[in-house]
Amino acid sequence: MERNVYLDHAATTYVKKEVLEEMMPYFTQSFGNPSSIYKLGQENRKAVDLAKERIAKAIGATPSEIYFTAGGCEADNWVIKGIASANQKKGNHIITTSIEHPAIMNSCKYLEKHGFEVTYLGVDEDGKVRLDELKSAIKDTTILISVMFANNEIGTIQPIAEIAKLAKEKGIYFHTDAVQAVGNLRIDVAKIGVDMLSMAGHKFYGPKGIGALYIKKGTRIDNLIHGGGQEQGKRAGTENVPAIVGMGKAIELAYKDFDQHNERIIALREKLINGVMERIPYVKLNGHRTDRLPGNVNFSFRFIEGESLLLMLNMKGISGSSGSACSSGSLDPSHVLLAIGLDHATAHGSLRLTIGDENTEEDIDYVLEVLPTIVARLREMSPLKPMKEDK
Amino acid sequence: MERNVYLDHAATTYVKKEVLEEMMPYFTQSFGNPSSIYKLGQENRKAVDLAKERIAKAIGATPSEIYFTAGGCEADNWVIKGIASANQKKGNHIITTSIEHPAIMNSCKYLEKHGFEVTYLGVDEDGKVRLDELKSAIKDTTILISVMFANNEIGTIQPIAEIAKLAKEKGIYFHTDAVQAVGNLRIDVAKIGVDMLSMAGHKFYGPKGIGALYIKKGTRIDNLIHGGGQEQGKRAGTENVPAIVGMGKAIELAYKDFDQHNERIIALREKLINGVMERIPYVKLNGHRTDRLPGNVNFSFRFIEGESLLLMLNMKGISGSSGSACSSGSLDPSHVLLAIGLDHATAHGSLRLTIGDENTEEDIDYVLEVLPTIVARLREMSPLKPMKEDK
Repeated sequence: MERNVYLDHAATTYVKKEVLEEMMPYFTQSFGNPSSIYKLGQENRKAVDLAKERIAKAIGATPSEIYFTAGGCEADNWVIKGIASANQKKGNHIITTSIEHPAIMNSCKYLEKHGFEVTYLGVDEDGKVRLDELKSAIKDTTILISVMFANNEIGTIQPIAEIAKLAKEKGIYFHTDAVQAVGNLRIDVAKIGVDMLSMAGHKFYGPKGIGALYIKKGTRIDNLIHGGGQEQGKRAGTENVPAIVGMGKAIELAYKDFDQHNERIIALREKLINGVMERIPYVKLNGHRTDRLPGNVNFSFRFIEGESLLLMLNMKGISGSSGSACSSGSLDPSHVLLAIGLDHATAHGSLRLTIGDENTEEDIDYVLEVLPTIVARLREMSPLKPMKEDK
Repeated sequence: MERNVYLDHAATTYVKKEVLEEMMPYFTQSFGNPSSIYKLGQENRKAVDLAKERIAKAIGATPSEIYFTAGGCEADNWVIKGIASANQKKGNHIITTSIEHPAIMNSCKYLEKHGFEVTYLGVDEDGKVRLDELKSAIKDTTILISVMFANNEIGTIQPIAEIAKLAKEKGIYFHTDAVQAVGNLRIDVAKIGVDMLSMAGHKFYGPKGIGALYIKKGTRIDNLIHGGGQEQGKRAGTENVPAIVGMGKAIELAYKDFDQHNERIIALREKLINGVMERIPYVKLNGHRTDRLPGNVNFSFRFIEGESLLLMLNMKGISGSSGSACSSGSLDPSHVLLAIGLDHATAHGSLRLTIGDENTEEDIDYVLEVLPTIVARLREMSPLKPMKEDK
């Protein structure tokens, strides 16, 4: 029987019923501007404050350290450009990695055109940053280290606490893009010691168009969006109240019964990884075997094109992705897969399946039933098909 | 009988029922990432394209010239910083006015700290830019003229077509912040000849957290938000599909039966303006008497504080505003009211009431019944109360 199996939760998630329900009154009834003096506005101020409290609680921050943005991309842009602009008298050097999200990569490239110097650290074959390499990249002019919490394509989790410690010792600001991590991993900014952390609502069953940046009290950062006095004067624009409310509810739900939920997702992931390895030859799991996001599976299938694989899976009702959602439409192979040492051909044959809340064992069984046949068929048609001497 | 009369539509509007209905499926069912290859994503691509067509049609643009943002503030920031960054080899001078929205003002102030020169044009007592003054402010180094379409506080409409013509003759980019104008005035970017135009969904019964920037084909502008390839590579971030769909529907509705609707709003405005002038002494209408936004009413009441007036009105169920929604919370008098020549005391006693779709004649009658008593009572308590010799 054909099914609809959505396995692209790292790209975006649906909005949970409870989340949407909590958002609804703010569209049509309690729609006032939270910066206003009248009742409608003041009710909304309370709703915004509650969302801030929920987010702060989830990541171990205080509510006044949470600033809403239009999403993860804006939060990442804000950090890179805002720290650069506010601290350029101190230095012009930024350290990041070669596997960051395009929001970080392209913000850094923009700064390079405007007098800044950026070091893009390589990673090992599992996608992890090497601490000694990071250490020796630090200069007197380094003002920021930005390393993602967990990778959006291969799921690898970085040694964030160690990196944070290193940055702190040298008096350098440390930011982590935690867009993929928030809602999926336990995070405590105070314990880890990060100065800034980006997140996005639509990665954990909240609405699109809303994100947040945690900024530790005392951090010197310029605004990205100038204007009115919203968000303590740090981010202008009428507050997107329904989306803010939704993000607050979503993060609360994400950390309710967290361990139990996480165990279930990891079990599904292991079933999928082991099932594919058993059934399909010439396959490589990308990313660290265990230090990876609970729902992330990323394989390279030799001798085939990821794009064709996606189309065939789509015809069977399975939604997956090849590389990052943000760079799809591009013909270049994923910069992440190249960074972990894959050759172009192998990188092109990659498939990311990311498991979420509504997925079941039956979904995984269905993928394990369908995928081997599709891979075999594509390999038969491939001019690169495996020769007997390949293994 | 007490009523609830919302008269702060310039701050924000509720989301229309038809708009919310069209948005709903994109939260929970059709939630896929529009940049993806699979069905869920492709459906959303079509929804985003339709919204772009509707917006383009409403303002006389082509769909590929419409770029979604998180709101009017982001669109304004994008223009000021993106034009500055992309054209700094050509020049470092920007011309704007002293009555712009804080999003423009504060972006310009930011640029002034980074080597740019900004001329803030004064306005006449009605709030209009003087064309001869604008003309003589132009230098060889001028790269951008940014003048708002209609003012958010006093409603005055600028001679946009004449300004656009002047800019074009000199080969200078022209931007207009039309956040208050879109949905309330007829706009044709091609006919007027503007290069960039900002708008925000929540000012015309669309959702918050979504806006758009019209960028004329061929305009040299750098990105504000770098990242993935969304919005033709010009604005990164997963598309906020429900909000985009809502904004498209809202703009379509705004220009349906536009003339009939507009006549009704203007009639209510005139009733309110004339009623206040007849009933309350020592009052001044701020903004141009006729070249003003259909729903905008802005009065200065001598001898009283706008803040107290708002609170008293609020107790009677009437929601209004004093100065711009974005700068409330601040104790400084409105920069717009000072720019049209009001002294501090008079500027402090100002009240903005902005009429919208759901307002009725009865609402206006109610305000005209309540307001004179409140004003009289506040004046009695005022240490500044009118002396016999005042007129």
